[in-house]
Amino acid sequence: MIAVLTGGTGGAKFVQGLMQVVAPAELFCIVNTGDDLRWWGLHVSPDLDSITYALAGVLSRERGWGIEGDTFECLAAMERLGMPAWFRVGDRDLATHLLRTQLLEQGKTLTEATHGIASRFGVRARILPMSDDRVETRVSTPAGELAFEEYFVRERHQVEVTAVRFAGAERSRPAPGVLQAIAQAEAVLLAPSNPVTSIGPILAVPGIRDALHATAAPVLAVSPIVGAAAFSGPAAALMRLHGLPVSAAGVARAYADFLDVLLIDEADFGTAPAVEAQGVRAVWAPTRMTSPESKAALAQVALEVAQSAARVVANP
Amino acid sequence: MIAVLTGGTGGAKFVQGLMQVVAPAELFCIVNTGDDLRWWGLHVSPDLDSITYALAGVLSRERGWGIEGDTFECLAAMERLGMPAWFRVGDRDLATHLLRTQLLEQGKTLTEATHGIASRFGVRARILPMSDDRVETRVSTPAGELAFEEYFVRERHQVEVTAVRFAGAERSRPAPGVLQAIAQAEAVLLAPSNPVTSIGPILAVPGIRDALHATAAPVLAVSPIVGAAAFSGPAAALMRLHGLPVSAAGVARAYADFLDVLLIDEADFGTAPAVEAQGVRAVWAPTRMTSPESKAALAQVALEVAQSAARVVANP
Repeated sequence: MIAVLTGGTGGAKFVQGLMQVVAPAELFCIVNTGDDLRWWGLHVSPDLDSITYALAGVLSRERGWGIEGDTFECLAAMERLGMPAWFRVGDRDLATHLLRTQLLEQGKTLTEATHGIASRFGVRARILPMSDDRVETRVSTPAGELAFEEYFVRERHQVEVTAVRFAGAERSRPAPGVLQAIAQAEAVLLAPSNPVTSIGPILAVPGIRDALHATAAPVLAVSPIVGAAAFSGPAAALMRLHGLPVSAAGVARAYADFLDVLLIDEADFGTAPAVEAQGVRAVWAPTRMTSPESKAALAQVALEVAQSAARVVANP
Repeated sequence: MIAVLTGGTGGAKFVQGLMQVVAPAELFCIVNTGDDLRWWGLHVSPDLDSITYALAGVLSRERGWGIEGDTFECLAAMERLGMPAWFRVGDRDLATHLLRTQLLEQGKTLTEATHGIASRFGVRARILPMSDDRVETRVSTPAGELAFEEYFVRERHQVEVTAVRFAGAERSRPAPGVLQAIAQAEAVLLAPSNPVTSIGPILAVPGIRDALHATAAPVLAVSPIVGAAAFSGPAAALMRLHGLPVSAAGVARAYADFLDVLLIDEADFGTAPAVEAQGVRAVWAPTRMTSPESKAALAQVALEVAQSAARVVANP
């Protein structure tokens, strides 16, 4: 069984690769829910949705989020009614949010709602929210504190960030199955997601970081940084804010306490010594995910390297 | 100022006529909310929506409900997810339900929410729910009790009805403005709506029937029955159930305690004596509403007859 920690568009692409090389019943996705928001009165879980759509084969290729071929008639109508429209919910996507909100109102946990939605999409891999408790990624800016999607989508991550916090994290518990998946996996993978705001919230749930340290499985991360830039999104600025070098070595440092191997881009092989200086083994391969084939190839190499890796981190 | 009691598709058509011959600021629509339902977790008010869309000029001509040119992508997605899809909510229509649900969750009354929605649609006539309290039209059938829309839409009113009740009516109060509109109107009109399940719920709100009796304004109804059949819908079966003849005279009898004039179809002039036997004056005119012109003409004649009518009902 393979466990993958994931969030954001890079995470969804990596899962699109994994689903080509891992049997569905063997794949456990542990997903960031720090971006969850109340939108038009509905419970929206952007990362859970992206992973569900990826595994269902309906994730928009063009946008990297939402459903392929979706329309936006309700959104346009909401905008005409003077309602906020910066978070772009498609008409088919909306059905997911309506269903989730109803399941939660019926007393289901987020884990149960996620499983119910995934099943109805025909997904057989397991999708686990990091927690059933509300953990909210909050971003401080000179103009005030924003929810993550306000920062990321509404402000297009073009505002200065002075702090990031995960509100509610200290009181949260890992969702059922999360610690078991990490403990029992043959390999634990960290997707090439933003270390601060996609993987960071998962690691902030008490018990998950310890489980990553304690597991007998090798833990491999794919670097979302090539050279001194992220593939996409605000990872560079947020890593800098957290005192991390914006480099593969910075990613290694973020995860150094539990990480065995960092898979870096082949163009970045020169940074391998800096990665290994963090006590993390470096390997390199093509990491750009621009086609189904390149996604599968990255997933395959990540799996092979992880499964052949000795556990480097000293187990407690 | 003109007050009109309305519900159903016949009511929406009649309001489309009235808006052509009455200034928006002079038109007060008192609308049935007995059909309101919780659908996909949202508060849907079918008759309020139809009147709003009619007054905004966006009511679907083809369907008689919902928004002209609307799409049904979310509905199709919900159906694929195994959710109920018999109540056909369009993508643009859905925006109205999302907005209403949010306004109500923010603590607004249904009157306030209705006004807020109508304003955003650019409607200047007043749309008043019959009550801010929940009054639910419940239909008993041999297979059990149904909500009105379950009976009307899901079962296509093809099941036997053994009883109709308005749950919650006895504890409900007229919405703010309803009694005043009836008291202060120059004329009160009853749209050619189903007397049992469109006008019946309005009359079941304590105080409204008394206000119709007490007002100094002439009260005129347009008959939804021609010959022994309704223009549309289950009015005939429901009138029969209530011991009313399925005829213009039956309509007159349903409203006899407060009605001055019943406007019947010209083809039905032969029933005038039976109507007048109920103590209600009968007038006849073309009542089929098949075009903007025929709707305006019916509204015009209804207004003229009402405004020239002496009050027949003895005021208390």
